[in-house]
Amino acid sequence: MSGNDRVILGIDPGYARMGWGVIRICNGNISENATGGARGGTPRRVECLGFGCVETPKDEEMGTRLAYLNDALAQIIGHYKPNDIAVEELFFAKNVKTAMLVAHARGVIMMRASMHTGRVFEYRPNAIKLAVALNSKADKKEMVSAVSQILKFEHAPKLDDTADALAIAITHATTTIG
Amino acid sequence: MSGNDRVILGIDPGYARMGWGVIRICNGNISENATGGARGGTPRRVECLGFGCVETPKDEEMGTRLAYLNDALAQIIGHYKPNDIAVEELFFAKNVKTAMLVAHARGVIMMRASMHTGRVFEYRPNAIKLAVALNSKADKKEMVSAVSQILKFEHAPKLDDTADALAIAITHATTTIG
Repeated sequence: MSGNDRVILGIDPGYARMGWGVIRICNGNISENATGGARGGTPRRVECLGFGCVETPKDEEMGTRLAYLNDALAQIIGHYKPNDIAVEELFFAKNVKTAMLVAHARGVIMMRASMHTGRVFEYRPNAIKLAVALNSKADKKEMVSAVSQILKFEHAPKLDDTADALAIAITHATTTIG
Repeated sequence: MSGNDRVILGIDPGYARMGWGVIRICNGNISENATGGARGGTPRRVECLGFGCVETPKDEEMGTRLAYLNDALAQIIGHYKPNDIAVEELFFAKNVKTAMLVAHARGVIMMRASMHTGRVFEYRPNAIKLAVALNSKADKKEMVSAVSQILKFEHAPKLDDTADALAIAITHATTTIG
């Protein structure tokens, strides 16, 4: 890993399930991978270091489930030691009750992340879709496909709960580095 | 402090300001104080051990402000070592944006509280008003007055940000002990 490499953790916040994905940007530029065309002569590379989904125990009370999220995120951060952490912004028009639960979880996530990196980056869902799939209204399938292509997954893993998290990390890379 | 004494921490959750209040119930019953009439022959007493309002630094980013809340709450819990912690439930009909911010803070509060006492108790605003002021639609002034009376404050302190927190603690006492 060179001095220009950056490790980015993307988080798709949730109360019952929190998706996470870690990418590494080698040589400080993601533009070839993210946009499909090299802008300069330097080889650039983005690679996936890991991804997953943390599920909180359904039978436990709210505080316990949030503490579980906090611990899990601390472990992920401790393992990958990301330079930057990016979290999806909340955008809810329909179910306020669900939104409030996710906001509880997101509070814990923002707090834990900031304890590691100070500033935590936030991106809106449509900005993430635009950055990754070049379509601000991309559906789930398009997002999974775009993430798989950018990260050069030969055998696309099951990304249902993690494509968004990886997409957030990619969005941060394209926004700040590319 | 006898073996029956219980220390209760009440929290009025907030993102910019978090009110807190700690009471001690002596001899395991609050009914004389809370209802104005003794139900049995045992002397019962409720006393205020402390209260305050934590303000998060306005110029800081969300994660930092949430971490500040987390640290402050850990200090309060470490100092008073409450047996039970009770937190007001969120009820918002008007401003969803504000509600979401409070929910972020409440997530951190619920997590931190549960790390100390396991179960965290939750009460709705109207249930708190009913328990303390005997009126589920009591206004701020009535709540301050009721809390001051129950806690026998001779010179009522400025309770604007803490009356609700103390009221939550009193509600928990009347619900579970009285």
